[in-house]
Formats: sequence, C-alpha cells, structure tokens
Amino acid sequence: MRIKLNQLAELVSGRLVGNGEIDIDSAAPIETARKGQITFLANSKYEKFLAATAASAVVLPTDKGYHRLPVIEHENPYFAFALILDALYPTPISKAVIDSTAIISSSAIIGNDCAIGALSLIGENSTIGDNCIIFPQVYIGNHVTLGKGCKLFPQTVILDHTAIGDNATIHSGTVIGSDGFGYARHKQGIKKVKQIGWVEIGSEVEIGANCTIDRGALGPTQIGKGCKIDNLVQIAHNVELGENCIIVSQVGISGSTKLGSGVILAGQVGLVGHIEIGDGVAVGAQSGVRKNIPSGKTYFGYPAREIMLAKRIEACLSRLPELFKRVRSLEENK
Amino acid sequence: MRIKLNQLAELVSGRLVGNGEIDIDSAAPIETARKGQITFLANSKYEKFLAATAASAVVLPTDKGYHRLPVIEHENPYFAFALILDALYPTPISKAVIDSTAIISSSAIIGNDCAIGALSLIGENSTIGDNCIIFPQVYIGNHVTLGKGCKLFPQTVILDHTAIGDNATIHSGTVIGSDGFGYARHKQGIKKVKQIGWVEIGSEVEIGANCTIDRGALGPTQIGKGCKIDNLVQIAHNVELGENCIIVSQVGISGSTKLGSGVILAGQVGLVGHIEIGDGVAVGAQSGVRKNIPSGKTYFGYPAREIMLAKRIEACLSRLPELFKRVRSLEENK
Amino acid sequence: MRIKLNQLAELVSGRLVGNGEIDIDSAAPIETARKGQITFLANSKYEKFLAATAASAVVLPTDKGYHRLPVIEHENPYFAFALILDALYPTPISKAVIDSTAIISSSAIIGNDCAIGALSLIGENSTIGDNCIIFPQVYIGNHVTLGKGCKLFPQTVILDHTAIGDNATIHSGTVIGSDGFGYARHKQGIKKVKQIGWVEIGSEVEIGANCTIDRGALGPTQIGKGCKIDNLVQIAHNVELGENCIIVSQVGISGSTKLGSGVILAGQVGLVGHIEIGDGVAVGAQSGVRKNIPSGKTYFGYPAREIMLAKRIEACLSRLPELFKRVRSLEENK
Repeated sequence: MRIKLNQLAELVSGRLVGNGEIDIDSAAPIETARKGQITFLANSKYEKFLAATAASAVVLPTDKGYHRLPVIEHENPYFAFALILDALYPTPISKAVIDSTAIISSSAIIGNDCAIGALSLIGENSTIGDNCIIFPQVYIGNHVTLGKGCKLFPQTVILDHTAIGDNATIHSGTVIGSDGFGYARHKQGIKKVKQIGWVEIGSEVEIGANCTIDRGALGPTQIGKGCKIDNLVQIAHNVELGENCIIVSQVGISGSTKLGSGVILAGQVGLVGHIEIGDGVAVGAQSGVRKNIPSGKTYFGYPAREIMLAKRIEACLSRLPELFKRVRSLEENK
Repeated sequence: MRIKLNQLAELVSGRLVGNGEIDIDSAAPIETARKGQITFLANSKYEKFLAATAASAVVLPTDKGYHRLPVIEHENPYFAFALILDALYPTPISKAVIDSTAIISSSAIIGNDCAIGALSLIGENSTIGDNCIIFPQVYIGNHVTLGKGCKLFPQTVILDHTAIGDNATIHSGTVIGSDGFGYARHKQGIKKVKQIGWVEIGSEVEIGANCTIDRGALGPTQIGKGCKIDNLVQIAHNVELGENCIIVSQVGISGSTKLGSGVILAGQVGLVGHIEIGDGVAVGAQSGVRKNIPSGKTYFGYPAREIMLAKRIEACLSRLPELFKRVRSLEENK
Repeated sequence: MRIKLNQLAELVSGRLVGNGEIDIDSAAPIETARKGQITFLANSKYEKFLAATAASAVVLPTDKGYHRLPVIEHENPYFAFALILDALYPTPISKAVIDSTAIISSSAIIGNDCAIGALSLIGENSTIGDNCIIFPQVYIGNHVTLGKGCKLFPQTVILDHTAIGDNATIHSGTVIGSDGFGYARHKQGIKKVKQIGWVEIGSEVEIGANCTIDRGALGPTQIGKGCKIDNLVQIAHNVELGENCIIVSQVGISGSTKLGSGVILAGQVGLVGHIEIGDGVAVGAQSGVRKNIPSGKTYFGYPAREIMLAKRIEACLSRLPELFKRVRSLEENK
C-alpha cells in the first residue's frame, strides 16, 4: 500500500507541513524508520530520536514547530497515527471458509461469511454471528452466543453459556467461563459450591492472551461494552466491569467486585472481593485495593491510598532511616 | 427441577420458618432473585438487599430472626446453600462416549464409563480411571495416571509421568508437569538442569484455569488431597502442598517450598523457595513471604509479618508524613 | 543407564574421594536418595540431610571435607550435578515422524528429521529448521521461522511472523506474537492501534508454560540469545531483552522497556514501560520498577530502590510503631 502524505494528512484531519506529494509505504518506530516510512512522536522520551530519524514523515503534536521533515501536526498524534496504520495496513479480507476439520454441532447456527479454522469445535445450540473469524483449535462449548464480527484467536476456550457481543476480540489461550473459586467450609472439610452462572461480554471488548474469566456463581460475570483487557488477567466470578475499562496485564479482580465505567487498573493490581470502584477511577501498578474507591479518584500503593497521600508516604519512606537518626539525636540531646 | 422448601430444609438439616409447601425451581443472587427462587445471605454486605428481594425463600444464619419471607435458618448458610444447589442443579450424566476423533495410544488403559472428547490425545502407557470425563482438545502425555471420576476441561495439558488421584478436576488451559526452572550458572554461561521428576496430585483436588504446576527436578512436586487452587497459579518444581490448602488466584510458590495442611494463600501472594509454611497458616493478599512461618499464624504484608505487627505498621504508615512534621517541630523547639 | 562413579567424576572434572568403582544408576534428592543413586548439596539448608542420606555418592563443594560416602568434590556442585544428570538420563532420540493428523500448509518448509505431533498446525510460508520437535496440538501461524533443534511442547501458540532461533524450547500454553496492548484515547472513546510488528527470539532461549509475549506495535519484540523465562511471564510489545537474562515466574515487563544482558528479575516483579535496565542488574521478588536502573545494580522493593537502602527501610519499618512511641515520649517530656 502506497499513500501520498497529503492524503494521510487529510484522512486524520491533521495539518500538513512540507511536501505532501511524497509516497508513504509503511510505518515504523522513530529509531528505525527508513525512507518511505512514516513515524510519530507522542512520548517526549523519544524526542531525542527526532533529529536523526530517516523517516520520510512524522506525526507530531501541534506545538512542536519542527520542520526538518514533512510533518503532520495533530493534537492527538498517537490517535492520528493509529488511523494512518489502518490506512497503510488494511486487514486482508479473510476467506469465509469453514475448514473441513472443524467439528460443528448440527444444532449450532453459523452466521454468514464466517471463517472457522482447522480443528476448532463448536458445541450444541451455540450461535455464531455473521462475519466472525474463528481461528484454528478454538473450543466453543454449548449454548454459547457470539455476536457479529468477533475474532477468536487460536486455542481460545469459550465454555458453556457464555454470551459475547459484536466485534469482540479474544486472544489465544484465554479461558472464558471456567468455574468460579467457590467453596463452603464446614466441619468436615471444604465443599465445592456449584457454579451455575455464566459470562456476558459486551460488544467491542478486546481480551488479551491467557486470561481467565470465571462464570458467575449464580448470575453473570459481566464485562461491559468497549472494555480492553491485557494478557494474563484474572477476573473472578460475579465481577462486573462497566464500559470502556482498561485492565492492564496480570491484574486480578476478586469475586463480586464491581467496577464503574472508564476505570483504569495498571499492571499487577489486585482487588479484593465485594468492593465497588467508581467511574473513572485509576489505580497505579501493583496496588492492592481493599476498600471501595469513589468515582474519579486516583489510588496507588499497597494498600492503595489516594495518590497524593501515597506519594507523600513514599517520599517519607526514602527518608525513614534518616528520621530514626534524627529521633535518636533528639533523645540524646534531651 | 422443582423441590418443596420443606424438603430443602430437611436436606440441609436447617430450621424452616414460614410456608414449607412452596416450590423452589432455581437459585439466584439476592439482588436479582425472582419468584420461585431461593437465595442466601452469608456476607453482611448484602443484608441491605434482604428487605427488597423478590426471592421466594432465603437461607439465613440462625440469629437473624428475619421472617418476611420463608426462611431456612442454618448455622452455616453458605454451606447449606451449596447443598441446595446440588439438589436443584443435578449434574447431567455425561454420555460415556469416546469421540471418534480422540487419539488414544494402543498401550493406554481406559476405565469403564469414561467420556473422552473430540481431538483429545492420550499417550503411551497412560491409565485413565473409571468414570473420568475428558473434554475435547485435552493433551495427556505418556505414563500418566488418572484416578476415578476425574474431570479435565478443554485444552488442559497433562505431561508425562503425572499421577492424579480420584475425583480431581482440572480446568482449561492448565499445564501440569512442565519443566521446572532449573539452571546452573557457570563460567561459560547458564546450563539447563534436566528436570527428571514428576507431579503427584491427590484426590479431590481442584485446579483452576491457566495454572502451571512444574514437575520436580528429581523427585515429585506434590499437591495434597483436597487442595483447591484458583486460576493462574504458579507452583514450581518440588513444591509440596499438604491437604486441603486453599491457593487463590495468581499466587506463585517457588521451588522446594513446603506447605502444611489447611494453609490459605490469598490472591497474588508470592513465596520464595526452600521455606516451610506450617499447618493452618493464612497469608493475606499480595504478601511476599521470605521466611518459614510456624503453624497457625496469620501473616500479611511485603515482606510478610505477623498480622498484628503488619497492621500496626500499616496504620503508622498512613501517619508517617505527620510524624515527620512532629519530629521537625521537636527539632525546632529543642 | 549405569555409570561408574569415577567415570562421572572424570566427566565433570571433579575430585573423587572414596570408592570410584561403584555403579550409579540414577539421581535423587538428598532426603530420598537410595542405594545406587547420586545426590548433591548446593544449598546449605539441606546440609542436615547429609549425615542420614542413603545415597551411594554425593557431589559436594570442594571445602566440605566430608567423607562418610564416596564424594565428587567440585567448585560448582550444582553445575557438576547437571552434567551428571545429562549422562545418567540421555534424551531419547525422538522419532522423526510427521503425524498423519498434523496439518501442514503446502507452502511450509519442514527441515530434516523433524517430529511433528498429532493435530499440530503449521501455516503458510513457515519454515521449520532441522531436528525440531513439535509436540501435538501446537499452533504455528503463517510466515513463522524456527531454527534448528527447537522444541515446542503441546499447545504452544506461535502467531504470524514470529522468528525463533536455534535450539529454543517453548513450553505448553505459551502464546508468542499476540497483539500488544495498544489503544489511543480520543474524544469519542478508545481506538485500537493496529499491531503490525512481530517477535524475535534468539537461539538457546527457553520459555516456560502459559507465558505471553506480544508482537511489537511497529517493530519487533526481542528476546536475546540464551534468555531463560519461567512460567506465566508477560512480555509486552516492543520489549527488548539482552542475552542470558533470567526472568522468574509471573514477572510482567511493560511495553518498550529494554533490558541489558544478564539481567535477573525474580518472581512477580513488575516493570513499567519505556525504561532501561542495565547489564547485570538483579531485581528482588515482587519489586515494582518505575525508573531506569544502571548496570550492575541490585534493586528491591515497592517501589524498587537500591538494595542497601531498601533493606534499611525495611528494617526501619519493623520498628516504626516503636518510633511513634519514642516521638510521643519526646513530645511529652519536652
């Protein structure tokens, strides 16, 4: 794919500075880009590479005033670059072929123009919407519903009664609908509590590789529309995520905890069960959240505290050995 | 399935208060239960829903004295509810069918009344006990032994020489018997230490989805009878778990560490290698354990300390910025 | 396999003390070894078992002067023991058989003497080097390159355009080449940033079970030659690992972070994105690294600090409740 730079600028409604007639054939990171390629700068850490890049063009914030190269200026260069990638790298139309080695229950309903890969299984009474791409070696159990345009990468496992909305993407190795971790202790030991619930996943959700999302104990585990979940994330039974949450890698959310919309959990965060996290909350990496967090707050630390307090404590910790000395000195001079 | 409330009360040896002649057809969470359904209350956080629930009956602790609805009072309502679920939702008898696409070594021995799903593999000299349910796309290597009544969900991987007891359940994506992480450093680099051990899993064990349990370096990695392991848990080579341990999601246990019986590790806990954790120890979420813990103790924190000390330190931390001010004030008024 | 002790001593260039004519048939841990077996002692925690072991011989450090049993003294007993294991347990030559149920694209190129297991898939234009062992149920996508002598355990997933060097080993359930977690926020929501990069894995790399290594956003994610990666590790897009890094279980490395050579990250460590970790850095378990670390340093803690400071702070923390009392006492006696 070759596109003129002025066409790309127009596509993203950006401001072109320099020669718009050059051809762009691909995209690359600022350090390694070569002639014919476009790159971008969104994180100031990489600004040092700007002077030396061999890229033919660069997408920059509007305030840079940098004109050695042809530039597309945009108030949101990363977003503009994402649009440019879509143009330069159109998704090949996958052939709507159902592989002869796929095993599909006679009671399953397969929509129009679906691709179903080799050695994939689709169970009884499951429904696959139009234009789904199911890669090879996928497991889809019984009574599963997939909306239109879903993409399931190789070796995903979608267990019975899971319902997935339109245009959801699930990456390899992820397991949806496994039993929740429910046991009742009693005098004679530990009794499994049958997990009779299910999982509901909204449209436009993307779930990374090797995640686990357990079915509800009684009702549903719910992942709201537009949520983006990274790799190796654990979501326990009866958790509810609102819309457009961003859950980074290796996060664990314990049972029955509810997240509002637009919540961001950074990597390796852990949430205890049965708490509520308000809309727009952000939680820093590796934090341990044990209590409700009201909407709009940013929390951090182990245990998680409001960011300002958490940062003050952290700064104090670095000076704690010195504080011990100061107290000793006070005691000696008493 | 429809069961009269008085029958359910009798089944769990609970005290019926109210009309026992009503029919119960299913179970649901207290917030969403409707007519014909039974619910329960074990966590006081959900007590607020009790006044408004549309459930037809509720299982309550014995001390509630709440009688708006028909009630089954029980000293252990969660356990009673688990028994009620078993009655309302009997497990369908799975057909003892060996799918024609399963690939079973001629030297493997398959017990009576086993179900083996499509595209599953069973290797040489492996033995499967009676009444096992092996879902599709499972991998069972060579010289594996499964007891009676085991359940392996889709895409579990059981590698060579693993031995599993009766009635064990292993969820999707879990890998049992991968190589331990053993390397010897030397002047010329890093040398792999061949992992010639195996994994032994006791009866009644349940292991969640996407876990990894490594084979021993020389001898066994051992998971004691009745242990319950959540999703995404890592158990390294030569670890030993006693009986009835509860290991919550994303815990990591390093090599050769030994746990007694009845140990509880909350989510995301990490244990270093070569330590011993006594019977009945409980460790709070995200704690980092670096030393032996004697039996019966509760530990918490990073690093893990006895819970009382850990809580005192945590309370002090919140007031640490204030302590700095107080010390400065003392210094100025010296 | 039976080997005389003096042959084993010679093999590892160790110093034999005692009867070298005895036969060794296998190896075992010091606690459980029996007659005919060899064991070793590298960690002083296990020295207590030395007096009672029933092993026929033991590999010891050179300074032990312990001679109840025949001994091989070696300056690096664990390394010597690793060599002895290789001799006692030679890897069986796997049959170079391509299973009839494997599905191999007609455009794939398979080297000499490869074993390809049942129900494995190899996609278009992929190249498999000589002597590779691909276990059953593996997924290899399109345009994948594998060097010579690679070993892929059951149910690994290698996605399109991944390049893997010689003698790499990848354990079950690991996913290489899934999309990076890249989204651009904008006024109307969250836009996926197409991940057009790939993964490059050096020779002699070993990757544990259920790991996730994402493709680069634009360029490569790179795992240097000789790196050893444990189970359940997350490596995000555009991460670079130098040579011979050791990454222990459940570590998470965020996008675009660069590690030098010989870096050691202990279990459950988390690294934020876009930082640089120098050669030979070691980071203690569960640490949270948010800033660059210069070469040669040892860091620890949450947040990670230089080990000496981190240990001093940790010691202070244990005495923090006491410090509060001391300050109160100073205030009262002012």
